[in-house]
Amino acid sequence: MPYEFKLTRRVEFVETDMAGIVHFSNFFRMMEATEHAFFRSLGFTIHGHESGSTFGWPRVSASCDYQRPLRFEEEVEIHLLVAEVRSRSIRYQFVFRQPGGGAEIARGAMAAVCATVDKATGKLVPVRIPEAVKTTITAAPPEMLKPIESRSAS
Amino acid sequence: MPYEFKLTRRVEFVETDMAGIVHFSNFFRMMEATEHAFFRSLGFTIHGHESGSTFGWPRVSASCDYQRPLRFEEEVEIHLLVAEVRSRSIRYQFVFRQPGGGAEIARGAMAAVCATVDKATGKLVPVRIPEAVKTTITAAPPEMLKPIESRSAS
Amino acid sequence: MPYEFKLTRRVEFVETDMAGIVHFSNFFRMMEATEHAFFRSLGFTIHGHESGSTFGWPRVSASCDYQRPLRFEEEVEIHLLVAEVRSRSIRYQFVFRQPGGGAEIARGAMAAVCATVDKATGKLVPVRIPEAVKTTITAAPPEMLKPIESRSAS
Amino acid sequence: MPYEFKLTRRVEFVETDMAGIVHFSNFFRMMEATEHAFFRSLGFTIHGHESGSTFGWPRVSASCDYQRPLRFEEEVEIHLLVAEVRSRSIRYQFVFRQPGGGAEIARGAMAAVCATVDKATGKLVPVRIPEAVKTTITAAPPEMLKPIESRSAS
Repeated sequence: MPYEFKLTRRVEFVETDMAGIVHFSNFFRMMEATEHAFFRSLGFTIHGHESGSTFGWPRVSASCDYQRPLRFEEEVEIHLLVAEVRSRSIRYQFVFRQPGGGAEIARGAMAAVCATVDKATGKLVPVRIPEAVKTTITAAPPEMLKPIESRSAS
Repeated sequence: MPYEFKLTRRVEFVETDMAGIVHFSNFFRMMEATEHAFFRSLGFTIHGHESGSTFGWPRVSASCDYQRPLRFEEEVEIHLLVAEVRSRSIRYQFVFRQPGGGAEIARGAMAAVCATVDKATGKLVPVRIPEAVKTTITAAPPEMLKPIESRSAS
Repeated sequence: MPYEFKLTRRVEFVETDMAGIVHFSNFFRMMEATEHAFFRSLGFTIHGHESGSTFGWPRVSASCDYQRPLRFEEEVEIHLLVAEVRSRSIRYQFVFRQPGGGAEIARGAMAAVCATVDKATGKLVPVRIPEAVKTTITAAPPEMLKPIESRSAS
Repeated sequence: MPYEFKLTRRVEFVETDMAGIVHFSNFFRMMEATEHAFFRSLGFTIHGHESGSTFGWPRVSASCDYQRPLRFEEEVEIHLLVAEVRSRSIRYQFVFRQPGGGAEIARGAMAAVCATVDKATGKLVPVRIPEAVKTTITAAPPEMLKPIESRSAS
């Protein structure tokens, strides 16, 4: 079932801000860490080399809705679902939960495009997802995905 | 016209990642820095004390669509627009541009709720926006705002 | 032997910079994460409440000497040694190594003072280390510690 | 007098932690931002390209002694002094002060080596400082520098 993955993390001190909670920007870093751990779990790396060129996965979009604050030393489960696999990009959805199926803390989404660095210009150029990734990662069944409409509600 | 604000920043080394561009999470930090500078420009602070209690503006949602990479030492203009002022929350839209009305780099949105820390429980409780803020900050004219629908496109 | 501790981490993408290596400031964050994990392993927390006041461990000094770069997805072992326990402060030494007793990557030191927030002034005031911490954590045998002199060499 | 430089910054929200003060690791990021602004002020960049190869300035060592906490929205002056210019490295000293010659907040030091990325191995290799940099930047007069001995005191 390579369309879902779960990462558990404990909040570090440096992730908090003076309001005593995890800074909202760090939820995006946790989403990315989960995406990368998902790739590693399948034997892939998010930043690879192939036939002499370097490719990566720059983000096209990212969003997060926050329900509950997250505090120092608390544990959080980050659930990743693959929402869509296209020829050059992948979309993910994320749910942050208290451990053991506890309360929902936040929900996020992220889209990343596979891209390589053009050696002449230094620009990022979208390319086809590597075949091994394409044939391994699949989208989750539609009923598992959160409807996109609800995202606009916030 | 307290519904728009512009902050200009130069990209710092620590904001880049090994792909050679500004890490996507840092766009959210730049949005927040712009919001805070907007508040300061009006004589307000985002983290204040009033009648013995501390209040802040925890985020309800945040999103960003990325069009162009941003690199070390490049300058970027962050344009803030107030999209909506409600009794307990404010919504903002952001456009990241190259200086001098140059190309668009990214677009973002953020909603923050005014909240105070409950002294007994330590929890964040939404409260009414301070009167001074409420009577000063207004929403931008609708024609200046980006339609919300387009946000779902990503 | 509560004078040493080892934390193993895998480098995350956001910790790297455009030079392709872990940004030097993140070594200080890894030292702190190790210190906090050391405290947790003993049943303590670095940010506690006692008799109605909050106390923490603000840093007095921190230093790091870098020998080898650390890259994305590499694992690193962070070895903590307690160098000194005084009435109000603790000094630590750190060695960063490749896993399994591999090559040394960096060496660091950090001193933290136990402090509480004065409720009237909001200032940090040094206080005696909590008794439970004081009677548990001890300094490592001198022969395990790196001489301080060598620090000036850089 | 290209041996000193001053950068003034205002503390951002994301730089604070749950103790309500600037996280100690961010002082190192401020030192680096000051070093880079110093280079820019002389027409140099810290991350350059020359005769087809990329060079940078990886850190050899960094240290900081903290005297006073720094809080959200406070301004801080970061004073850079060049302590030594060698064939392949530069050492700096930093003093963090409240604006307008106010109280000292922290003192730091940093040494960086000029290095290029070996194309075959990907390793960082120390190289001679570019001639233009070497002939422009000089060490501050010894009487302006803080003795190194005092660094070990912490």
